[in-house]
Amino acid sequence: MIDTPSLVDQYCHGVLRTELGLGAFEAHLGRTAGPPAPGTTFFDTQTGFAVRRWCPPLLGLEPHCPPTHYLARRRELGVLETGRRLLRATGISTYLVDTGPPGDLTGVPEIAAAGRADAHEIVRLELLAEQVADTSGTVDSFLANLAEAVHGAADSAVAFTSVAVRHGVSLVPEPPGPGEVRGATGRWLDGRTVGGRLTDPVLLRHLLWVAVASGRPLQIHVGVGDPLSLTGFAAATAGLGTDLVLLHGYPYHRHAAHLASVFPHVYADVGPALAHTGAGAAAVLAETLEHAPFGKLLFSSGARGLPELHVIGARIFREALDRVLGGWVGGGAWCRADARRVAGMIAADNARRVYGLAG
Amino acid sequence: MIDTPSLVDQYCHGVLRTELGLGAFEAHLGRTAGPPAPGTTFFDTQTGFAVRRWCPPLLGLEPHCPPTHYLARRRELGVLETGRRLLRATGISTYLVDTGPPGDLTGVPEIAAAGRADAHEIVRLELLAEQVADTSGTVDSFLANLAEAVHGAADSAVAFTSVAVRHGVSLVPEPPGPGEVRGATGRWLDGRTVGGRLTDPVLLRHLLWVAVASGRPLQIHVGVGDPLSLTGFAAATAGLGTDLVLLHGYPYHRHAAHLASVFPHVYADVGPALAHTGAGAAAVLAETLEHAPFGKLLFSSGARGLPELHVIGARIFREALDRVLGGWVGGGAWCRADARRVAGMIAADNARRVYGLAG
Amino acid sequence: MIDTPSLVDQYCHGVLRTELGLGAFEAHLGRTAGPPAPGTTFFDTQTGFAVRRWCPPLLGLEPHCPPTHYLARRRELGVLETGRRLLRATGISTYLVDTGPPGDLTGVPEIAAAGRADAHEIVRLELLAEQVADTSGTVDSFLANLAEAVHGAADSAVAFTSVAVRHGVSLVPEPPGPGEVRGATGRWLDGRTVGGRLTDPVLLRHLLWVAVASGRPLQIHVGVGDPLSLTGFAAATAGLGTDLVLLHGYPYHRHAAHLASVFPHVYADVGPALAHTGAGAAAVLAETLEHAPFGKLLFSSGARGLPELHVIGARIFREALDRVLGGWVGGGAWCRADARRVAGMIAADNARRVYGLAG
Repeated sequence: MIDTPSLVDQYCHGVLRTELGLGAFEAHLGRTAGPPAPGTTFFDTQTGFAVRRWCPPLLGLEPHCPPTHYLARRRELGVLETGRRLLRATGISTYLVDTGPPGDLTGVPEIAAAGRADAHEIVRLELLAEQVADTSGTVDSFLANLAEAVHGAADSAVAFTSVAVRHGVSLVPEPPGPGEVRGATGRWLDGRTVGGRLTDPVLLRHLLWVAVASGRPLQIHVGVGDPLSLTGFAAATAGLGTDLVLLHGYPYHRHAAHLASVFPHVYADVGPALAHTGAGAAAVLAETLEHAPFGKLLFSSGARGLPELHVIGARIFREALDRVLGGWVGGGAWCRADARRVAGMIAADNARRVYGLAG
Repeated sequence: MIDTPSLVDQYCHGVLRTELGLGAFEAHLGRTAGPPAPGTTFFDTQTGFAVRRWCPPLLGLEPHCPPTHYLARRRELGVLETGRRLLRATGISTYLVDTGPPGDLTGVPEIAAAGRADAHEIVRLELLAEQVADTSGTVDSFLANLAEAVHGAADSAVAFTSVAVRHGVSLVPEPPGPGEVRGATGRWLDGRTVGGRLTDPVLLRHLLWVAVASGRPLQIHVGVGDPLSLTGFAAATAGLGTDLVLLHGYPYHRHAAHLASVFPHVYADVGPALAHTGAGAAAVLAETLEHAPFGKLLFSSGARGLPELHVIGARIFREALDRVLGGWVGGGAWCRADARRVAGMIAADNARRVYGLAG
Repeated sequence: MIDTPSLVDQYCHGVLRTELGLGAFEAHLGRTAGPPAPGTTFFDTQTGFAVRRWCPPLLGLEPHCPPTHYLARRRELGVLETGRRLLRATGISTYLVDTGPPGDLTGVPEIAAAGRADAHEIVRLELLAEQVADTSGTVDSFLANLAEAVHGAADSAVAFTSVAVRHGVSLVPEPPGPGEVRGATGRWLDGRTVGGRLTDPVLLRHLLWVAVASGRPLQIHVGVGDPLSLTGFAAATAGLGTDLVLLHGYPYHRHAAHLASVFPHVYADVGPALAHTGAGAAAVLAETLEHAPFGKLLFSSGARGLPELHVIGARIFREALDRVLGGWVGGGAWCRADARRVAGMIAADNARRVYGLAG
């Protein structure tokens, strides 16, 4: 067995504060906003099966018990006690929390308290820019306030994150020019009401470059497209002293891992790609370990809304790591000391180094 | 062992009616129209090895016997008796048959009789349109007859299928406008002689939208390109009440499975991707099961021409399912009852629900 | 156990002639020109772990010993004796050597002598064109000398190789026209000083077609892009009598294997994709064996600079082959005689046939 020490979850969200019925719970297991197809349920997915495997025993039930039993027990304990029991069973000692997504989710201090763990904030760039726009009247004040807000956030947050690429922004290598940025800002502010979302590709690219200048690690959600399209941006940001962390690379996780092997400042996440593939996670982890240097991979749960997702993110990761590295030790390809060292690197040490966390 | 009940083969073709020599038989094992490379044979492929594993015992020979022995025994029994023995050993109780491809292949009733099974027709849209064009003199009559033919076919067929995407048509989300369709029809009919193939992208897209309006499931051959290019078309057809079934996703089967997880009306095939990979099929099946909800995957053999291909499609699927799900049960990730249920869903139940077949 | 006979390494380079310190040695384990990320080392990669597994015992040390011990022993033996010991332990009986890349590496006769093996030259087309340009004053003389040089090289070399695709040249199916080629040649020669690199896409495509006309197998480095982009070029060169060998397909090795199944004259390499993935190589090999006809795959080490890389290329390949084919035999999918035959084909026989080597 390859023992994994306590984990640093380098990317997750808070959990819901309300009691959940079966339907509301199930909705958080799917990958779409809408309902499942007629005649199907999101419980019949790797995520659903993993929740039913790992979580019932933590609430005193049999593994794989029916969803209705689990939900009844969950309501019996209450959302707060359920959250505490589940988060404290993850083995995660540090949570890095993206506080950006909408919805009434617990914040950084609440996660720390519920999980008896450390927790730090990841600032979502698009949301920060929208907040700055809410209080900036002119192009000049927006751009100045934005720079100030990013640099201010860099003092307290452990990282920035951006969903621009996942939403279709094409990352050309060069930053947009000042005139281009001013023009785009003017058009955006003119047409905007308070709370309006930032979708302009010029401003989104500007935002990434402002973040790169801050020196804090920048987490990029790569979505389901080929991350090799980021090669130009990676080349342009090499040597500037800011690390890029690629999130959510599946089904292009091998490509993300390859990028991490080519650019010293590029890192790859091994989180949701495992959590979403459940029983199949060991194969995905093994693929990620093919090209990536072992110092360039970082665990995360990617969990949002349900503490069950933090649990399965951590459990699936540990089990996959044990199976893959243990198998390589068993077959003589690796020695056990190396396997333990690599497990510790991916589980926590790489994240501590990249984000400057205390050991 | 995960027992698989009788199978619904959601996509296959008929078999040849003629006796075959070694060369003609071998030609049906390859993936090209031409001969194999000098010094090689299509028997030296996963398909060839799978045929040699599974089929000789069904004709009274040793598994893995030389191809010449097998072909001699096949001729001794005759093409009819061989077909009956092989098809009745597949475990397939319902065949959905694409009657579109050229060649003298057995039709729906013959397959049902030879295999002692149910059989239903899948109508190939491009062929239907070509037949309509053969008997329509004007743009107006063609378009009216086409709509009528599609809706008429929807009464008797279980599904439509299209090879437009595989042949390179780019599926922009919107249907082509009426003027665009009339123009394309005029140009096509003008230049066309009886039997001429439909390759015009505007008409092919029009055809898909006419089929979507019929409410019958639409099977799309995605070829070897990334099925994520279908995201826009999937979004545009969501909520219309017509299901899309993606065929032949390999080597992008993970992407096809991911699309099936994102859109309630999108389903993915797990057929030829397994049949063509033979001894490697368990890995491909496991990858397909990573993201796809278990209610969104459908077995098929994809077989054409040789009943041997129906046999290996079914046998490879069953064995891969047993190995993958059995492995997950053995490791504690899934419980046995769930594994049996999921096996039944992919083998038959999902297809029965999607195509409205009797249980 | 599936015994693999002696290997033909269908693509490798020579080794360094100088004694190496720890840093210089480590630099050859990475996939970038620069240093590893702060806090990481290229020893912590699959390549580094594979070197530490396989090479220390060949120099009298324990497997997985610390890199410093290994480097000390290496210097103690000296670079020549180390090279001899390592190369003679590869089991490679024939090396095909790309003499193109810059750097002071051992040449064909030296590799043959150090490895007690046969060795043949692979000519890198871009380098050949640059050498011709160094001695050609006019467009006419360059084009005539180039044709002569390629045809001359075809007499002595076993193959040509090109890195044009890896460097971003888009391979449209048609050869460039004579006027286009003359124009591009003029512009290149005008702006060029002795030793200047060839990067013009028109000339690079011209060069490929001159090589195709020679009849010698043409090895194409496909880089990390999807090799299906080569489909048009493959179709255009089909039936001309010249084989194309796709090198370095990972992470698109399944796509490369698929191309090899579709075009009789297209072959796929199974070299560096295994050597770079180390303990994960069996999975990559199994994926490559899904679609490729077994007569269309060729072993290589892809090694450059360090004889350790020739060793691990050969050892990882043998072990992966034994694990994958042995597993299929154990599970009844293949028979042992077939597995041995296929092992021999990929290890050596296919290369002997394609390159016309003596058995």
